[in-house]
Amino acid sequence: MFVEVGFSFVCVLMIALINYQKLNSGHVQQLRAIVGDDQVSTAVAERKLRAQDMSRHEERLGDVVVWPRDAAQVADVLRLANEERLPLTPWGAGSSLEGNPIPTYGGILLSTERMLDVVKVYADDFQVTVQPGLGYKDLNHKLASYGLFFAPDPGANATIGGMLANNAAGIRTVKYGACKDNVLQMEVALADGRLIRTGSRSIKQASGYDLLHLFIGSEGTLGVITEATLKLAPVPVNISAVTASFDSITAAIEAVVAVRGSGLDVAALEFLDEELSELLTRENGLKLGRSPSLLMELHAAHQATIDHDLALVREICLEMGARTFYATADTAQRRGLWHARHHLFETVLRCYPGYEWINMDVAVPISAYPELVAFSSQAMADQELFGVLLGHAGDGNLHVTLSFNNGTTYERAQIVNEQVIYKALALHGTATGEHGVGIGKARFMPDEHGPALGVMAAVKAALDPRGILNPGKIFP
Amino acid sequence: MFVEVGFSFVCVLMIALINYQKLNSGHVQQLRAIVGDDQVSTAVAERKLRAQDMSRHEERLGDVVVWPRDAAQVADVLRLANEERLPLTPWGAGSSLEGNPIPTYGGILLSTERMLDVVKVYADDFQVTVQPGLGYKDLNHKLASYGLFFAPDPGANATIGGMLANNAAGIRTVKYGACKDNVLQMEVALADGRLIRTGSRSIKQASGYDLLHLFIGSEGTLGVITEATLKLAPVPVNISAVTASFDSITAAIEAVVAVRGSGLDVAALEFLDEELSELLTRENGLKLGRSPSLLMELHAAHQATIDHDLALVREICLEMGARTFYATADTAQRRGLWHARHHLFETVLRCYPGYEWINMDVAVPISAYPELVAFSSQAMADQELFGVLLGHAGDGNLHVTLSFNNGTTYERAQIVNEQVIYKALALHGTATGEHGVGIGKARFMPDEHGPALGVMAAVKAALDPRGILNPGKIFP
Repeated sequence: MFVEVGFSFVCVLMIALINYQKLNSGHVQQLRAIVGDDQVSTAVAERKLRAQDMSRHEERLGDVVVWPRDAAQVADVLRLANEERLPLTPWGAGSSLEGNPIPTYGGILLSTERMLDVVKVYADDFQVTVQPGLGYKDLNHKLASYGLFFAPDPGANATIGGMLANNAAGIRTVKYGACKDNVLQMEVALADGRLIRTGSRSIKQASGYDLLHLFIGSEGTLGVITEATLKLAPVPVNISAVTASFDSITAAIEAVVAVRGSGLDVAALEFLDEELSELLTRENGLKLGRSPSLLMELHAAHQATIDHDLALVREICLEMGARTFYATADTAQRRGLWHARHHLFETVLRCYPGYEWINMDVAVPISAYPELVAFSSQAMADQELFGVLLGHAGDGNLHVTLSFNNGTTYERAQIVNEQVIYKALALHGTATGEHGVGIGKARFMPDEHGPALGVMAAVKAALDPRGILNPGKIFP
Repeated sequence: MFVEVGFSFVCVLMIALINYQKLNSGHVQQLRAIVGDDQVSTAVAERKLRAQDMSRHEERLGDVVVWPRDAAQVADVLRLANEERLPLTPWGAGSSLEGNPIPTYGGILLSTERMLDVVKVYADDFQVTVQPGLGYKDLNHKLASYGLFFAPDPGANATIGGMLANNAAGIRTVKYGACKDNVLQMEVALADGRLIRTGSRSIKQASGYDLLHLFIGSEGTLGVITEATLKLAPVPVNISAVTASFDSITAAIEAVVAVRGSGLDVAALEFLDEELSELLTRENGLKLGRSPSLLMELHAAHQATIDHDLALVREICLEMGARTFYATADTAQRRGLWHARHHLFETVLRCYPGYEWINMDVAVPISAYPELVAFSSQAMADQELFGVLLGHAGDGNLHVTLSFNNGTTYERAQIVNEQVIYKALALHGTATGEHGVGIGKARFMPDEHGPALGVMAAVKAALDPRGILNPGKIFP
C-alpha cells in the first residue's frame, strides 16, 4: 500500500508540477498586499542574488523575491502560493552546499532575510527564541553577555532557519550535538497557510508525535520555520586547543578512533590531510607541516578536567606516533586556529587558481572511518584527480573536496562522489552527514532509505498535497 | 485544508472503528500459520495478564495474544491485521503509566516478550543493536563487561521497544537525554506489513525526513519497532551521590534552579517532598529527616572533576540553607539510595494501605519549576487530598502522586490532575514529560498542540489509513 502511496504520490507530484501556474502580475499585486510594496521585488538583480547557493548546482531564478517580516505574513504568502499552485522556495543566507534553496521550478522565493529578531532570551533556562532569518554568528554575538551560546557551528554565518531546515552541524557537534539536538519548540507555517507550534519549552517532552524533528532537516519541503526556541550551552570557562600531526593518514585516524573510544568528551575533533596541513602551515602559521593532522578543542568547567583530558589525548597521540603535539589555552591562538579551519575552503580557492571544487559530505560510524578515508584516497587516485580530505572526524563525518577544470575532470569527480557515497552506505553510514539532500543527493535516496522513502513521500503528500514547497529537493 | 484533513481523518477513523472485524477462529489459524502454534494463545489467563499496564485505566482483554520471534513475523501479523481490519496493540513489559498498551478495542495483542536478542554489540562505536522485547536492565547487565551502558533509566525493567515507543526517560535524562536522544537506527514494521529501516549507524545524519523521531514516542500507533540500534555511554569511572535536605520546598527547588543554572553537568537531580523524605529515612535508612530533599549523582572521567563539582553543589545547597548535606563515593551506599528511589512507589503502596494512587507526569522549563510545585501543593490542599510530590527536578519534570479511596476522592484527584496539567501548559511546558499520552492524556492534546494535532492526525492517516495500530491512544 505504501508502495502505491509512494508511486501515486510521485504521479500526483508530476501532475502538480505540470500544473504549477506561472507567476503573473496579479500574483505580484497580491504579494504586495500581504507584505507591503517594499518587501517584494521582481528585479533581476535581486532574483539573481538568490539563484544559487554555495554549491555547483545550476542556478535558477525565482520569479519574485518576497521578504515577509513576521509569521503571519509567511503564512499568508504560503496560503496564496497553495491556492494559486505557485512553487515556493524558502531562502536564508544561501550558504548551503547541495542546492537546497535553489528555486528549481521558479515561482516565489521566500526570503527570511528580514526576520532578524531575538524574540526573547530565557537566561535561567538556557534558551532563546528567535526569528528564522537571524544569522548564527549574530545570535551568538548577542548572547555573549549572558555567558551562553548556541553550540552547532556550521562555519558560515548561516541563518538559524536555514540551519534547522537542513539539520546543520559542524565542528562542535561531537560534544554538543547537531541542530536537531538543540531545538525545543518551533512555529511552522504549513503549505496551506496555517501556523502551528510544535514542541514546548520543557526539555522533557513525550506528548504526541515528534513533529519538531519531522520539520528539522526537511529542507523547507514540509513547511517554513517562522520561529524557533533553541537550547543554549554555557560558554565554557576553560578551553584548550590542540594540534597534532602524524606520519600517515592511518595513524591520524587511528588516533581519532582511540580518542573517541576512550570516552573523552572532546568539543571538536577535526581531521586534515597532508595537503591541507601544509596549506594551513604556510598560509596561517599553524605548526603542522606536511603531515596528516588533527585539530581538537576541549571544554570544561574546571581546569583540572582540562589538564587530565589533555594528558590523555597527548598519550594517545604519542602512542600513534604523533610527529608534533601542541596544546594551548591562549584565546588568540585558539581563535586563529579555528579561523584558519573555517576559512579553509576560501584558502584552497585562492591557492589553487584555475580549479573549481566539489565539496562532498558523507558520514559513517567511527570505527569505519579509517576504511572510508583510505577508500576515498584510492578513489581520487584511481581517477587521477587532485583533491583534499578533511572532516569532522570525531563524528565520522568526511568531506572529500575534489578539483576539476574541465568537463572530463568534472565527470571523473562525479564518479568519485558516487563511489564514496556508496562506500559510506555500505559501511552503515549516510550519504549526507550535515549538508542535507537538496538537489545533489536526491538520486541516492532510494538506495539509502529503501522503502522508507515511500513513507517520506506519504508524509510529504499529507502535508503538502499540491507539492508547492521547495519542489525538486530530497525526492529523486 | 489540514483542519479538513484532521476532521475527515477523525471521521474515517470512526468509520474504521465501526468497521473493525471481530477476531474469529480463521484469524487465529492464520496467526498460528505465521508464528507457529505455541506462539499464539487465546487463553483468558494470558489475555488477562496483558489487559492493563501500571496505570489506573480500565483493563481490556485482547482477543488473542501473539508472540512473534522476528521482524518478518511481526510484519506478517500486521499485514493480516490490516487486510482483515483487526485492531492490533503492541505490548512490551506492561510497565507504562497512561494505559499506553491496553488493547482498548480488543483484537490482536502483539507481544514482543519473545524478541529478546542482543543482535550485535559495536563496542568501538559505543552502539548496540537489539530486538524490542529485551528488558532495559537485562541489556545493561549484558553490556557491563564492555564498560558501556544504555543511559535512559525509567526505573522499571521496561522493554527497549516500549521505552522507544513511549520516549521514556527517567533519572539520568538530565545528563544523557531521553530515549529520543539515544537511538541511531530502527527497523519498523508498518501497518501494511512492510518493513522499513530509518536512520543509520552514523551519529551525524542529515538525509531525508527524520522518520526515526517520528516513530519514537508514537506509542505504537504508526508502526511496531522490530529492531533498534542504540547509542551507549561509557560507564563513568568516578561516581558520587549526594543527598541534601532543606527547610522548605521553595529552598530545595531554588537549589535545583541554581545547580542547573550554574552549568553543572549532574547525572541525576531528583526532588522529594517532606513526606517522602521521611518515608525513605524510616524505611530505607536515608539521612533526610522530614524535610524536602534532593538526591543527586555526579559522573566524571576524573576524580578532580567530581571534587570540584561536589564543592560547588555543596556551596549552592548551603547557600539555600540546607539542613543536611551528604556526599558519598561508596558504591553500596549509592546503590542503596537509588534502589530506595526506584522502589519508592512500592514503599508508598506498602506504607499507606487502603489507598490507591494516581501518578501524574508534567514538565516545565526549569525556571517555572518552583511555581509548578507550589501550585500543585496548593491544588492538593484545596481538594483536601493526601498526596506526595516528587520529580526529576533537573529536567523540570514533576510527578504529583495522589491518593484516593473512594469515588469522591477519585473525582477530586482528577480535578487536581487537570489543574496541574493546565498549569504546566500555561508555564510553556507539557502534559507529559515521560509517561506518554496513552489513554489518560489524550483529552489534553487539543489544548497542548492546537492545530498541530491536525498534522499528527494527517500523518497517522497517511501511515495507518485503516486505523488498526493501537487505536484509542494519543488522539482524543
